[in-house]
Amino acid sequence: MSVKYEVLYESKETNARLGKLYTEHGVVETPVFMPVGTLATVKTMSPEELKSIGTEIILSNTYHLHLRPGEDIVKEAGGLHKFMNWDKPILTDSGGFQVFSLADLRDISEEGVAFRSHIDGSRLFMTPEKATEIQMALGSDIAMCFDICPPYPSTYQDTEEATRITTLWAERCKRRHEHQYQSLFGIVQGGAYEDLRKKSVEELAELDFPGYGIGGLSVGEPKEVMYEVLEYTVPVMPRGKPRYLMGVGSPDCLLEGIKRGVDMFDCVLPTRIARNGTCMTSIGKVVVRNASYARDWNPIDPNCECYTCKNYSRAYIRHLIKTNEILGLRLTTIHNLHFLISLMHEARKAIKEERLNSFIKEFYESYQD
Amino acid sequence: MSVKYEVLYESKETNARLGKLYTEHGVVETPVFMPVGTLATVKTMSPEELKSIGTEIILSNTYHLHLRPGEDIVKEAGGLHKFMNWDKPILTDSGGFQVFSLADLRDISEEGVAFRSHIDGSRLFMTPEKATEIQMALGSDIAMCFDICPPYPSTYQDTEEATRITTLWAERCKRRHEHQYQSLFGIVQGGAYEDLRKKSVEELAELDFPGYGIGGLSVGEPKEVMYEVLEYTVPVMPRGKPRYLMGVGSPDCLLEGIKRGVDMFDCVLPTRIARNGTCMTSIGKVVVRNASYARDWNPIDPNCECYTCKNYSRAYIRHLIKTNEILGLRLTTIHNLHFLISLMHEARKAIKEERLNSFIKEFYESYQD
Repeated sequence: MSVKYEVLYESKETNARLGKLYTEHGVVETPVFMPVGTLATVKTMSPEELKSIGTEIILSNTYHLHLRPGEDIVKEAGGLHKFMNWDKPILTDSGGFQVFSLADLRDISEEGVAFRSHIDGSRLFMTPEKATEIQMALGSDIAMCFDICPPYPSTYQDTEEATRITTLWAERCKRRHEHQYQSLFGIVQGGAYEDLRKKSVEELAELDFPGYGIGGLSVGEPKEVMYEVLEYTVPVMPRGKPRYLMGVGSPDCLLEGIKRGVDMFDCVLPTRIARNGTCMTSIGKVVVRNASYARDWNPIDPNCECYTCKNYSRAYIRHLIKTNEILGLRLTTIHNLHFLISLMHEARKAIKEERLNSFIKEFYESYQD
Repeated sequence: MSVKYEVLYESKETNARLGKLYTEHGVVETPVFMPVGTLATVKTMSPEELKSIGTEIILSNTYHLHLRPGEDIVKEAGGLHKFMNWDKPILTDSGGFQVFSLADLRDISEEGVAFRSHIDGSRLFMTPEKATEIQMALGSDIAMCFDICPPYPSTYQDTEEATRITTLWAERCKRRHEHQYQSLFGIVQGGAYEDLRKKSVEELAELDFPGYGIGGLSVGEPKEVMYEVLEYTVPVMPRGKPRYLMGVGSPDCLLEGIKRGVDMFDCVLPTRIARNGTCMTSIGKVVVRNASYARDWNPIDPNCECYTCKNYSRAYIRHLIKTNEILGLRLTTIHNLHFLISLMHEARKAIKEERLNSFIKEFYESYQD
């Protein structure tokens, strides 16, 4: 079956909503945060650990998997789920963002993007059709259209051109896409220009995708700009389709996004900062590698029920991080993902009980960035 | 309580035996392999994972913990067990081997060893008393005497001197040792010289330790030399006390050691080669990082029941190892430790059923090093 989305409840005090995303590999409650498993593994985590902290869906990266191990190997394994031993839903991004942020010497034309691999420097050419075919081979539940993600700031003219090509490419992706259960989402671009965002939504809505990414945000713009873009973009997006704010994962941005009607998020932030010894907690960031925690026998977050916080002290985790021990990276990653996934759970509850605004207010009162 | 050892069964066809080691933190069946948790963590593994593969006791390193985080911090945590969330027995080595193999610019006198830290180059002085005090602070179940471990080959004269000092230091360790439940084991030295080994055993036996390490092996000598040393050393060791062959962990050496009457083993080998993409299997070494496994959908070891082999293919694990993903290191480590611990379990069964020789013969027939 293709992905289906159901809006279960719409907040009266905000634009937030509750929904359910039905996929071949299970149902996902929204708003949802998707941990990132770039190379067919959420760094440091086992599938069982992901499930134990409540993960309902993960994201994996087309660009990275195309380079290593190659989609042919993943397909031969029986698809990404079997390859990595993950039986819940997977969303794959199209590789568009990675081609523009990671690859070298890219050359963009309407046909596609020529670039060099960031791994071995080999010359590659990516097109909307190719990005779609790779994702079909990977067999994710949700594939994304290949798009152009302009940096911030970009001129109106550059953003207009990127948005124009993104729509053309969305058509080509849709034409090429054909899969037993995988659904293809469009990606809204338009930078920080209201008319371009609205035009992008309109054009993509005409193509009637089963869901829409909001791309081109969290690319260096101030948070206020991101919130403003969401304020004029989300309300014009199709009401019955899931809205996915791509690459956003700080706790405050998740809550602000939810309030503005976003249903899905992904970001490497919680896993990346975890491996650097930084934890997200109910009282703000705890940089557990700091010397001040050398004899701190408290858990990372006194208000947390995760495996890490129930069993280990800040002092022990600091010791592990300082000595480059892998268990340290595992423990901080478990904690950070549990923190964000629990935050989503609490936000869903707050939406249902019509107290999202006060929930966000309380969050800001205790959380120091 | 101090550690107690009980010999349960003595093989008729070999010098192997079955025993039970009673400690404050539980009972250990011997012969046993102890995974190494150098820095208060068995690299990549959680305590729950260690238990799930049947780990009954682990080893940790006095030298490393003295440098980082320092025994005062571990003591403040309530000891090593609480610090690292491991409630089963722990053996700490004395740091003797590490001082001689890792530290820089060491200067040995009868008083102790002056050396420089391999971490920050700071000047340190280790004595038998100090090594004992550190282990008392760590609160392991079994502490080891501070000893001198000569390299292979060493002259008779050098080995004699090292063995003489090792006995003097064993007396000083014993005099200093005082702990509620921790027991102190002596370490037999004597290199590859039969008379020195026998003298070392005699002198240490007079000090009546509750257990004895066999040190100075697996330091570069051919395996045949190790086996020969065991053949003339083990039979003269006290029958009622556990015999611990230090730093030995290849499957063949474990079996040959068991056959010659050894009860305990430890080694970084299974965990170290795991992180390099090499697996121990029932058919010999599988270097899973090799290109030949890129499309191999079999488990690492078709005869294995571990978590890794039940859930993941060689192709996936190869992909993880090639892309430096931590899950890959976790999966190969789980497999290798499970392999050795299961091998010990099977060897115990073979001893009980008086078929250890045929068990070892079958092992060599399928295992290729």
